[in-house]
Amino acid sequence: MRYLIKFSYDGSNFYGYQKQPGKRTVEGELERALYDINNHTVTRIYSSGRTDRGVHAKGQTAHFDLDISITLYKLKCALNSLLPDDIHVIEAINVDNDFHARFMVKNKTYKYYLNMGEYNPVDRNSIHQYNKELNIEKMSTAIKDLIGTHDFKIFTSKEVVKDNYTRTIYEANIEKKDNLLIFKFTGNGFMKYQVRNMVGTLIKIGKGKLESGTIKKLLNNEAPEKYIFTAKPEGLYLEEVSYK
Amino acid sequence: MRYLIKFSYDGSNFYGYQKQPGKRTVEGELERALYDINNHTVTRIYSSGRTDRGVHAKGQTAHFDLDISITLYKLKCALNSLLPDDIHVIEAINVDNDFHARFMVKNKTYKYYLNMGEYNPVDRNSIHQYNKELNIEKMSTAIKDLIGTHDFKIFTSKEVVKDNYTRTIYEANIEKKDNLLIFKFTGNGFMKYQVRNMVGTLIKIGKGKLESGTIKKLLNNEAPEKYIFTAKPEGLYLEEVSYK
Repeated sequence: MRYLIKFSYDGSNFYGYQKQPGKRTVEGELERALYDINNHTVTRIYSSGRTDRGVHAKGQTAHFDLDISITLYKLKCALNSLLPDDIHVIEAINVDNDFHARFMVKNKTYKYYLNMGEYNPVDRNSIHQYNKELNIEKMSTAIKDLIGTHDFKIFTSKEVVKDNYTRTIYEANIEKKDNLLIFKFTGNGFMKYQVRNMVGTLIKIGKGKLESGTIKKLLNNEAPEKYIFTAKPEGLYLEEVSYK
Repeated sequence: MRYLIKFSYDGSNFYGYQKQPGKRTVEGELERALYDINNHTVTRIYSSGRTDRGVHAKGQTAHFDLDISITLYKLKCALNSLLPDDIHVIEAINVDNDFHARFMVKNKTYKYYLNMGEYNPVDRNSIHQYNKELNIEKMSTAIKDLIGTHDFKIFTSKEVVKDNYTRTIYEANIEKKDNLLIFKFTGNGFMKYQVRNMVGTLIKIGKGKLESGTIKKLLNNEAPEKYIFTAKPEGLYLEEVSYK
């Protein structure tokens, strides 16, 4: 039987998302718990995608196959009892045997949390402590240029080699709650560092170091790559993954 | 010159507040930083009071004397550059030489954060993960009984031996933001475990394990001590200390 789980994690104390020998990773911890549940059988998980080291998730997803028979409620409980306290399974559902957690993704939503106010030690690993004012009007104008179908190659990590860098962003906006800024992006897919690079560049615009039109110029290859800045990982959350 | 600092900390990774040989404590870290600033002179700090192990602060205060001459801005910067990233000095001000950060406290405000929704791994050390519904109406009725001048001996730790257990609570209420509950208490002083014991007992009332009238009965010594429960430390914040 194939299962899809929705889960959250605190990325702070993981070496990264993907399983690596000898390292504490999100995937590694999940597969270790599933090994115990699935009658000591090596059980691979297939996630909607990786997140960078230090990045969090509120609604990451993954599928896997189990040989044993178990109710969804018991599966959730068994996973949560075996997993460390920085990973939490929110839901487990049954899916068809041809379902794939990565290839069938429709949309993903990422949020980036930034504190413009006084440094807050309690939030230092969960909200980016920028601790200075930003021009929200300029950033809100600039973020709109990211909406639509574009070649986002300039916004991804240089390590990324793909046939196609075209992605569609359906929604991109900035919400302000007192001193907290929440950047939200919904799209059909995001490449490595893409969200952090979009946010980092927006921060430079908000700071007045770059003009509002820079995002549009970067997308049109009319501005140099050195205008791209990578925002710190701790403010980023994979909020939601939706399927076709 | 005597200085008063206002500071915040994440209590998660400290052995406690008060200096103890060989242990990582908030007071110990502050005195270590002040030793460097004050020309390698042992510099004692006097806090508004201790907080329990695992409890956080957004507005703790302490005073100390320095032999050197330093501007307030430089003192704040020097402290923040020398302190670990889980303590942060918000403000430094000059005070009279007879000022005392503990004896001259007028009011203290504590807040307790509780999540009734799904377990959130990112917040596990900063918001109590209760993860079940509570009857807010019953708790909001019960919390009002704490307002006023009462003998709070029954709500303190049994280790506490004092001449006087009478304290005044000016404000006590519960705010609900989605699944988050924020218990707020303002009073002229709180004893060891008092806030956590008040919150713990309120939670039992919200859960339906105790009647709404239990708080009043406990204060009047008409209910047994076994009705007192201690809420976990990670939800508690010393929010503010005000002076006469």
